Amino acid sequence: MTRITMDNLHDFIRGTAILGTGGGGDPYVGRLMLEQELVKCGGIELIDPDDVTDDIFAISVACMGAPTVFVEKLPNAQATITAMRKIEKEVGRKFNAIIPLEAGGINATLPLVVAAQTGLPVIDGDGMGRAFPEFQMTTFNIYGVKCSPFVMADDFENTIMLETDNALRTEVYGRAVCVKMGGIAQVASYAMTGEEVRRTCVPRTVSLAVDIGKTVRELRVAGQEDICEGLADYFATSNPPRFSRVLFDGKVQDVIRGTEDGWTVGNVTLSSGDERDEMFITFRNEYSQAKLNGKTVAIVPDLLFILDRETGEAITTETLRFGQRVKVIGVAATEEMRTEQAIEVIGPKASKIAEPFVRLEDLAWRAEH
Amino acid sequence: MTRITMDNLHDFIRGTAILGTGGGGDPYVGRLMLEQELVKCGGIELIDPDDVTDDIFAISVACMGAPTVFVEKLPNAQATITAMRKIEKEVGRKFNAIIPLEAGGINATLPLVVAAQTGLPVIDGDGMGRAFPEFQMTTFNIYGVKCSPFVMADDFENTIMLETDNALRTEVYGRAVCVKMGGIAQVASYAMTGEEVRRTCVPRTVSLAVDIGKTVRELRVAGQEDICEGLADYFATSNPPRFSRVLFDGKVQDVIRGTEDGWTVGNVTLSSGDERDEMFITFRNEYSQAKLNGKTVAIVPDLLFILDRETGEAITTETLRFGQRVKVIGVAATEEMRTEQAIEVIGPKASKIAEPFVRLEDLAWRAEH
Repeated sequence: MTRITMDNLHDFIRGTAILGTGGGGDPYVGRLMLEQELVKCGGIELIDPDDVTDDIFAISVACMGAPTVFVEKLPNAQATITAMRKIEKEVGRKFNAIIPLEAGGINATLPLVVAAQTGLPVIDGDGMGRAFPEFQMTTFNIYGVKCSPFVMADDFENTIMLETDNALRTEVYGRAVCVKMGGIAQVASYAMTGEEVRRTCVPRTVSLAVDIGKTVRELRVAGQEDICEGLADYFATSNPPRFSRVLFDGKVQDVIRGTEDGWTVGNVTLSSGDERDEMFITFRNEYSQAKLNGKTVAIVPDLLFILDRETGEAITTETLRFGQRVKVIGVAATEEMRTEQAIEVIGPKASKIAEPFVRLEDLAWRAEH
Repeated sequence: MTRITMDNLHDFIRGTAILGTGGGGDPYVGRLMLEQELVKCGGIELIDPDDVTDDIFAISVACMGAPTVFVEKLPNAQATITAMRKIEKEVGRKFNAIIPLEAGGINATLPLVVAAQTGLPVIDGDGMGRAFPEFQMTTFNIYGVKCSPFVMADDFENTIMLETDNALRTEVYGRAVCVKMGGIAQVASYAMTGEEVRRTCVPRTVSLAVDIGKTVRELRVAGQEDICEGLADYFATSNPPRFSRVLFDGKVQDVIRGTEDGWTVGNVTLSSGDERDEMFITFRNEYSQAKLNGKTVAIVPDLLFILDRETGEAITTETLRFGQRVKVIGVAATEEMRTEQAIEVIGPKASKIAEPFVRLEDLAWRAEH
């Protein structure tokens, strides 16, 4: 695939909502924003990371904040462009490509909206391979791309430029301002060269979103009884193939949710139809750990989806509610997200979980033996 | 006076502590920092605001944070210079003078330390005529100097540049980062032309600090019984003369103090020797309102000093403690600090006090009639 157009828009949006792993906000908002642009420009060009040349100078754009706030306050593409221009002025060089920060949620869509408005192409890859709650949790950071200069902008075009020695500090300082901006801020950061794009991004995640959305749609059209099983099967043939399993089938029993220091934090308890089994999933913007009857069956950075069991549509942390019939799918993170280096930055410890990271496939093997 | 040297250093420091109106941190720290520089450079040149020429391009430097934090963590002149250089780069022009943000506390000393390290002269004036708890509370802001670009730096030379449409927003965003920086940050802001200096500063407040310190010292040397009365009398002949009164004589009965959102917040209750009268003073970094037996006798932006009744030395909010024998002096703010425009920004409402501003002299007249 080389373009996002009106033809694959709905598949793409459905896929980004699922790759949001619970975070990233309402996909509906992202679709409206992108649809408006596609009507005008026809399509947005994607560049495969393997085809990225050395003359590429890419910028990552995103919306910072808690999904509970996104419900009330839309992301602002114009302010994002303001942030991006500010970095261009600082580094004295124009960007010629946009690279998504996240593969899921509104932050998978916003880069395309910005690309449409600035006439730039989008790199088919991102820095998270899913969504994560913090700005340092990127393969860009893990593999040495500098987060600074990092510019935030609010709706009034006020800007804040952070230049720090590490991405975690940027996250801490930036988050504090984000809260004061009303819990949402537009951000440009991780300016990078073509070489850095090729070396550090999680490749082909824009296409992945389209493929996931398409898979769900086709299963639905085909009248497939178990869409979630079908989606888990899809990952056996994705590029690269990944381990994936349906981990639970049941209904939402209880949801604890709050907005804390700028994040949507809480947990959800699911119970099986016969009420014999219970799944407990914690989240911090995104789903981070699933326990089946007290035993961990999936943990960050591996991906957790909670999907509507009939339609296969994503259920995000802020839309969880009592009684929803859901299935939970676990998907292995890509290899670049599972190195020792990566686990330090995006593993359980970074999400304040005391347990060590164990691969989804190993947890499944243990459960079965 | 045209210079700050080792000869008037101690007077200056004593004066800045008093002009800190309770805020601004331990004067001892400021003295050590400045002394070190004076030993090296001999003296720091002051420019009278009336002599400021149009080719002057001045920058205001300060330390942001809660005085309770200053006790544990020193201001950092080098980081302040980093912040200042960042603005020079942004606006494309070099500064040729430093203008203090505050007339009291460590922020009256820090500009001189920075001046010594950069070889620049200091303007004999400031933006507060005392100390205030927030960055928008300046005559610079009141009379139209832009606060942006506003740069903060931490001890690791990480910088944050804020460009906003108003100084209050800068304060809100900046304060959030300041808290994350450990409750203290170095700041450069209010870049201004010579014309702006002449038009907006509270004039001759560096000299004023020296004169206040000298007055207290001379009264002490002369064996004057009541140093505080003598200091209140001094203001009748200061330039310009100002109304001043000793408002209370007694001891510290109770102190409530906390650090809240980056400020030192609380109140102190004083009782007279015969325990018939009680004075209640609220503070937010600085003393903001004094009530004598329930009736307001001084309110911001007018100045309140709590002084050791024997030595005339300032007692700051973070050093208040039970049993201290003190006198409270009220001093009228200057006219530029009392206009309708000014009261909006630095009056009671800005300090979250519901009462209207009434001039110290009018409150005194009411009390006496």
